[in-house]
Amino acid sequence: MPSSTLPAISIDLDRLMADIEQLALIGHQPDVGGNSRLALSDADRTGRDTVVRWMQGLQLDVSIDQIGNIIAVCPGTEPQLAPLMVGSHIDTVANGGKYDGNYGVLAGLEVVRTLRAHGIKPRRGFAVAVFTNEEGVRFAPNMMGSLVYAGGMALADALAAVATDGARFGDELERIGYSGTLPCGAIRPSAYLELHVEQGPILEHEGVTIGAVADLQGIVWHTVTVRGQANHAGTTPLALRKDAGLVAAAILTESRRVAEEIPGLLATCGSIAFLPGLANVIPREAQFMLDVRCTDEATLRRGLALLEARAHAIAAAAGLTVSFEKVAWHEPVVFDAKIVDLVEETARQLGLSVRRMTSGAGHDAQMLARVCPAGMIFVPSVGGISHNPHEFTAPADLEAGANVLLHSVLQLTK
Amino acid sequence: MPSSTLPAISIDLDRLMADIEQLALIGHQPDVGGNSRLALSDADRTGRDTVVRWMQGLQLDVSIDQIGNIIAVCPGTEPQLAPLMVGSHIDTVANGGKYDGNYGVLAGLEVVRTLRAHGIKPRRGFAVAVFTNEEGVRFAPNMMGSLVYAGGMALADALAAVATDGARFGDELERIGYSGTLPCGAIRPSAYLELHVEQGPILEHEGVTIGAVADLQGIVWHTVTVRGQANHAGTTPLALRKDAGLVAAAILTESRRVAEEIPGLLATCGSIAFLPGLANVIPREAQFMLDVRCTDEATLRRGLALLEARAHAIAAAAGLTVSFEKVAWHEPVVFDAKIVDLVEETARQLGLSVRRMTSGAGHDAQMLARVCPAGMIFVPSVGGISHNPHEFTAPADLEAGANVLLHSVLQLTK
Repeated sequence: MPSSTLPAISIDLDRLMADIEQLALIGHQPDVGGNSRLALSDADRTGRDTVVRWMQGLQLDVSIDQIGNIIAVCPGTEPQLAPLMVGSHIDTVANGGKYDGNYGVLAGLEVVRTLRAHGIKPRRGFAVAVFTNEEGVRFAPNMMGSLVYAGGMALADALAAVATDGARFGDELERIGYSGTLPCGAIRPSAYLELHVEQGPILEHEGVTIGAVADLQGIVWHTVTVRGQANHAGTTPLALRKDAGLVAAAILTESRRVAEEIPGLLATCGSIAFLPGLANVIPREAQFMLDVRCTDEATLRRGLALLEARAHAIAAAAGLTVSFEKVAWHEPVVFDAKIVDLVEETARQLGLSVRRMTSGAGHDAQMLARVCPAGMIFVPSVGGISHNPHEFTAPADLEAGANVLLHSVLQLTK
Repeated sequence: MPSSTLPAISIDLDRLMADIEQLALIGHQPDVGGNSRLALSDADRTGRDTVVRWMQGLQLDVSIDQIGNIIAVCPGTEPQLAPLMVGSHIDTVANGGKYDGNYGVLAGLEVVRTLRAHGIKPRRGFAVAVFTNEEGVRFAPNMMGSLVYAGGMALADALAAVATDGARFGDELERIGYSGTLPCGAIRPSAYLELHVEQGPILEHEGVTIGAVADLQGIVWHTVTVRGQANHAGTTPLALRKDAGLVAAAILTESRRVAEEIPGLLATCGSIAFLPGLANVIPREAQFMLDVRCTDEATLRRGLALLEARAHAIAAAAGLTVSFEKVAWHEPVVFDAKIVDLVEETARQLGLSVRRMTSGAGHDAQMLARVCPAGMIFVPSVGGISHNPHEFTAPADLEAGANVLLHSVLQLTK
């Protein structure tokens, strides 16, 4: 390790791993693998109860706010200073991994334990936050707890959200005992720092241990519908066909071409259906979801405009029509330069390889960036796999990331 | 009308239309439109009972064979001659039209009535056949009754077929009272002639009334599976993606190109799915159905080989794999030249516009062609629409087609 100005302390990997493994037992799906702790489900309640018990065991000051966010404050020596906040979420997708979200929360608790073990009491307090419903699988939108926290969505609208299973968000929050009294956003942090697994392949691909996340892509979802004319697959000559499926295929191919033309733009189609969906009927309609991302808002808008224009041209040339319906729009976020610098420098001081990078996924940090300087620390995801029982990060990388968090916290609270 | 050597008799359109409309009341779906008389359903039974009652009312000699085909014989003056056979089917797809199949059967009964009305008793007898389960929607394969009749499938295998709803074919045939005793194929016809709506746009597009069907396309279905790697839509750089959806799109586009390159070849994809099918996950797998048709067997095989080779090249270039699984193979059929000539000449003599054409769809006639000279008569389908409540053929065209059948029967039985 190179010479460092950082104090010679580090987190205890065994303690952190024990917490991660214990939390992963809750909502574990022995048949299909992975964890299912959908927001405000019974499993989510058990997970929350467990983490709150651990927080209380550390004598943290635990509050629940009106959207169910859990905020555990470790006071500093100067109580008038706004606390630093670290955290993430502990809800999961169906059959999700054990690191996504959980790692950031549990590493926050491990930082508390490490400071206590070394008798360190920082000047500025810091809070470990667990944000409600980050995944958005059961209730839309995702990142709901942090969005409401940051004032981006009215509490009443969030409480009125209806689950895929028909339940009302507010009722479910009451039911699991996490309808708190603290007004959302009442604790305004000095800064927010979120440690998370990358969920992408870049760090592993480049053999780098730490990502200092500089920005986060804007994400736009459209439902794209191509309308043609159903006809018999055996009796309709090529020249008379209005095949919605072929036009959709051409638009998919074109979406990749546009992404290659515009540096930084990503375009993905993850789901598609043809109607009526019969083997021997030319599709009258093709509907697919188009996910377009970019870190730069102007480029994102330019990319979307180009994509729509090309799609309309492709459809028109074939005598068909296409329409784009916007179903989600998250603007790009640029994280605080000082926090990004701090993460990068801290990793370097710890002798860890580090690169600045973009978050392709959405995170609670993007919501907190609305109210305070924010940033993120990434560690490698093996194979880039996430939202999957096979999600995995090597213990040494989990340890490295938690140490970057520890020393960043020390600097942001001193 | 030009001078004709044909007798000056014609079918009664009102009687024919009354039968068509009455049969269409059985299994009518008032909410969504169209008819649902899936093979061996209660509605199919009621439809069969109705048609059998009409046959008995005409004093035809009605037999049910072991696969449930209904064969109503109108004896000729020379009983030692093998009978001519006309016919089609009366089962429908879900929400099908009122003409597909039914028209050919009911026009056969109208021919009987017309001959009786004019006191004509042909030398050779002729049979009106209703083949079981032509559509194949509830029980695979389609054209099952005529396939077993022609010896292309063992009776035991057909009786063991299991429905989409779990029922066994043999049990259902018993249940609806159509498990007959006549051995399949026991009545070997002198020839087979099937009158049917085109189900395609060619006749209407060209303004021609009668199609003398010269051949019938071979039909091959493959399930095509592209295997890539699932990954996060936001975190996976373009260069690292193994997007099964994009490769499937490229193969669809290529399938159209191959069809354009090889005259006579048709290729259609009517259904597709991406897995896991989530908006923000790059598809790990894309599966679609590919329907390829051609009238010429060698060309069909050449087209399929080219399509497979191109698909493998496209997948390999992207670092993915693709596999083709054959799920149906019907060879092309060339109908009997004398029957095709007869249909064409009869139409001409009746002053009707006529063209030789290919059937893009499968029909019972292709099975009967295995055991006797066979042919088909087509009439226009408005908009080429079929398997749809909007299936429609103008009454004047129905009349014209039935008159071509009438005069063809007269010549084939004299």
